[in-house]
Amino acid sequence: MILTVTLNAALDLTHRLDRLRPGASNRVTAVAERAGGKGVNVARVLHGLGHPTVTTGLVGGRSGQALRLDLAEAGIADELVPITGETRRTVAIVDEQAGATTILLEPGPVVTATEWACFLTRFDGLLAGVSAVVLSGSLPRGLPADSYSQLIRLARAHGVPAVLDTEGEPLLAALPEHPDLVKPNVDELASSTGESDPITAAARLRTAGARAVVASLGPDGLLALTDRGAWRARPPAPVRGNPTGAGDAAVAALTLGLVNREPWPTRLTEAVALSAAAVAAPLAGSFDPQMYARLLTRVRVEALTDMAEGENPCP
Amino acid sequence: MILTVTLNAALDLTHRLDRLRPGASNRVTAVAERAGGKGVNVARVLHGLGHPTVTTGLVGGRSGQALRLDLAEAGIADELVPITGETRRTVAIVDEQAGATTILLEPGPVVTATEWACFLTRFDGLLAGVSAVVLSGSLPRGLPADSYSQLIRLARAHGVPAVLDTEGEPLLAALPEHPDLVKPNVDELASSTGESDPITAAARLRTAGARAVVASLGPDGLLALTDRGAWRARPPAPVRGNPTGAGDAAVAALTLGLVNREPWPTRLTEAVALSAAAVAAPLAGSFDPQMYARLLTRVRVEALTDMAEGENPCP
Repeated sequence: MILTVTLNAALDLTHRLDRLRPGASNRVTAVAERAGGKGVNVARVLHGLGHPTVTTGLVGGRSGQALRLDLAEAGIADELVPITGETRRTVAIVDEQAGATTILLEPGPVVTATEWACFLTRFDGLLAGVSAVVLSGSLPRGLPADSYSQLIRLARAHGVPAVLDTEGEPLLAALPEHPDLVKPNVDELASSTGESDPITAAARLRTAGARAVVASLGPDGLLALTDRGAWRARPPAPVRGNPTGAGDAAVAALTLGLVNREPWPTRLTEAVALSAAAVAAPLAGSFDPQMYARLLTRVRVEALTDMAEGENPCP
Repeated sequence: MILTVTLNAALDLTHRLDRLRPGASNRVTAVAERAGGKGVNVARVLHGLGHPTVTTGLVGGRSGQALRLDLAEAGIADELVPITGETRRTVAIVDEQAGATTILLEPGPVVTATEWACFLTRFDGLLAGVSAVVLSGSLPRGLPADSYSQLIRLARAHGVPAVLDTEGEPLLAALPEHPDLVKPNVDELASSTGESDPITAAARLRTAGARAVVASLGPDGLLALTDRGAWRARPPAPVRGNPTGAGDAAVAALTLGLVNREPWPTRLTEAVALSAAAVAAPLAGSFDPQMYARLLTRVRVEALTDMAEGENPCP
């Protein structure tokens, strides 16, 4: 059983239309509404792979209610903790003619200290019998920057490995607790470290405490710095589609690899294949299973020189 | 008790942001979610005036559930009939810097013949003890063009006057049933009759069966053609704000005037004042009560020559 955590869950709306005309009335041709947020996407991918999953986090208001209904319909075990604030919505407006997507991000709830204390109690109770915990996404307003540190500490007390997918202050504050894996994308890696070279930046995160760093480089695949070596893993060709949720699919595969103690090249192969198969599916949290199976034999994994493995990446 | 009917109800979302950048991620600064659709707006205005009101129509899915929750919070009696389709959402994206609003209109549900039959039964049951019925807005897919005709016929069988606010085929098909009042806006009047002159167009609707026609002319106020005479009613000055729902406020006032058998100039004065007070309020269905009271003494009502009152407006 893998436990995924989404502290800033979202209800994702997608509106498709022929052509978005700003300032005018636009007829929407298709609508989708889905439980979202990175941890929810990870849970959905794990569930799609047939792996037992439970998801927790904070939800409130009508959007929170709609999110829970959607999780129930998807058959994903729901251990979300209610809050009084209103779960944020994201609205994706897909302009079919322009091939462009306009995204609206609601501000989301403010979480109280009492609500956070209730969440910690629930989280602690869920850790028994869990094989790994995945902590994903931004923190809602009101939570301290060291929230993920607190969760990793609780997980360690239960002997449960922690995978962390966030950026900026919440990422940096959590590194001293030695998360087993952090997975920034290339932009988050640069903005969190102030370092533009991905290998140098990833090495910094390891120096600061992360046991392994896997950075997603978009269509260029993954870069991994671990205590067993460093690798680049690339898909055979770029995949067209919706990149939202591709990183979450990579996290799902990497977490399964961690739980199953697979060799790193295997984990990275699965992560690149699943990530590309997620791009090919229209909605975040979904993946194309045929493409996943086909890509598993075609991902190229290349070991990097040992300079990247040490504490200091410079020769 | 006034009964309002919204066959194509909506859940209205409003997203405010500093500047809408199409094709990019936009942070929303404020969010509102409200039960909507023209008949719901009319009910909200009547409720705001302290008049007993009950609202019916068709609702389904999660948006329908959210709509009903909002009605309950507003204290508006809910006799909505459930359908399996999903109630449409409207999304208004308010660009504060540009002062422009982009609107997304979801397609809305398809109503089955069985659902329509269930609605007719409920509507018939609600008519006992009702002083007037207000029929507002477009028809959802699946309903016949003569749906409003059927409702007006049922209302007449109970001796209940009917006010109709729709356009195009559903309006034209209902005129032979002699609705007591129809209230198109100037664009709907032109598109429904193919006649650009409002007086000529309104006279056509009377010839086709409407007992009275009140056309809303936006900031220019109202034009009324009735069996007691014809009038123009104008606000003292244009009001800045949100024109959505201004027509619904006019319908609320005109229906109260009908129920109270007020003289037409009084009805029109109240309708223009309430409509302008609705423009001054940020959300459809709301109005500024101070402005309403102030404008009641300042609306100018002018009788038109009797040429407009006959069946043929041409001399």
